[in-house]
Amino acid sequence: MDQAAAVDQAGPVSRAGRPRHRPQAASGVPARAQILDAAAALFTEHGFAATSTRMIAEKVGIRQASLYYHFATKDELLVELLSTSVRPSLDVVEQVGARGPQVSAAAALYAVAVADVRTLVTAPHNIGTLYLLPEAQGDVFAPFRAERQELQDAYGRLGAAAAAPSVAAELPAGQLGELLIQLVEVVIQIRRARQPTAEDATAIAASCLRLCGLDAGAVATAATEARALLASLG
Amino acid sequence: MDQAAAVDQAGPVSRAGRPRHRPQAASGVPARAQILDAAAALFTEHGFAATSTRMIAEKVGIRQASLYYHFATKDELLVELLSTSVRPSLDVVEQVGARGPQVSAAAALYAVAVADVRTLVTAPHNIGTLYLLPEAQGDVFAPFRAERQELQDAYGRLGAAAAAPSVAAELPAGQLGELLIQLVEVVIQIRRARQPTAEDATAIAASCLRLCGLDAGAVATAATEARALLASLG
Repeated sequence: MDQAAAVDQAGPVSRAGRPRHRPQAASGVPARAQILDAAAALFTEHGFAATSTRMIAEKVGIRQASLYYHFATKDELLVELLSTSVRPSLDVVEQVGARGPQVSAAAALYAVAVADVRTLVTAPHNIGTLYLLPEAQGDVFAPFRAERQELQDAYGRLGAAAAAPSVAAELPAGQLGELLIQLVEVVIQIRRARQPTAEDATAIAASCLRLCGLDAGAVATAATEARALLASLG
Repeated sequence: MDQAAAVDQAGPVSRAGRPRHRPQAASGVPARAQILDAAAALFTEHGFAATSTRMIAEKVGIRQASLYYHFATKDELLVELLSTSVRPSLDVVEQVGARGPQVSAAAALYAVAVADVRTLVTAPHNIGTLYLLPEAQGDVFAPFRAERQELQDAYGRLGAAAAAPSVAAELPAGQLGELLIQLVEVVIQIRRARQPTAEDATAIAASCLRLCGLDAGAVATAATEARALLASLG
């Protein structure tokens, strides 16, 4: 650590021929991806405030100057990580929406929930935990919060369209969106305790539909339709 | 800040007759409660790692030595705060359980969910957000995690007893507990955006029952029974 620090302080001189810290990620992985992975590991293990860009650079085996070439600030790293926990799910929302009225609202909601669980399960180092950090509330995180709000709105819209009349009358779409996105995010908590399974994804998606007031038969029908839909998305 | 630091370094000499930093909390509030409130405010605003015991002592208007009289470490403060976000709900679980079989499982689940929402809404500075911190995963937080697990188990037990047969067959009590506690904790997220209302509490409790597969009529019956139950608990 001290040696690395000394090297960093030596500035951007030529290092050709000198032994280097080996990147811990597989070689061939782009530096940008390695930096994101190391940052996710350190943020989730030590917290955001307690992690320095030096620690991240060291974990990757590059100089701080190289890190700054890819990310100007630590905030920028966190914004990017948070976005990767939302963006793939938004893509699925869009793809499902593009199918138009041939897809039932219940099947669309089920499919988005399953896809969103997958996004959160595959996000490196369970970075979904990071969005609750007080540090993630500042203005610099507004783009991420806008994306998460967009996903929440999609849940509300699909939930309201799928809901039984008694539930739709009781729960405005906005409130339904809050409940549904949070229900899906249970997988973040599950991941802290154990590796989530495929059954977790279907249990969560079915729970979303029941929360909207669908009975067992309607849930089963939507699940079958959603499985075909997800398979067709590739 | 520098002045306070200088005073702190002066050690535990008599301060009679000297002007003091005024506690920011209402006078008459015990120092221990003032310390907890200040710690909650700072942890949730700046994060746990970025908050020092000196910052907390300063906010209260006491010396660090006085703070250490009440709490040996910063960890101890966080454990205590986290526990206050769970313990009142566990009390309600116990009170409801003491009523025995005269209370239906659905009404018991509804009542516990409403009480838990209230606990989270009244917890100072939305400290429920803190349990996701990486810092809250260490051994020192084991007592808190045990309490939260106890509450989650109660949700699973009540949910399994209340659930429609098709749902009970699909979701083991453990998984049901994970889903239900997380659904109730949606109120932590709501609080970050706006002040939760009484309607939020009933919407969340009803959603818990629908998630268990109860239809609109069964939810309405349980809600009526639960209201009477909660009123009788005082």
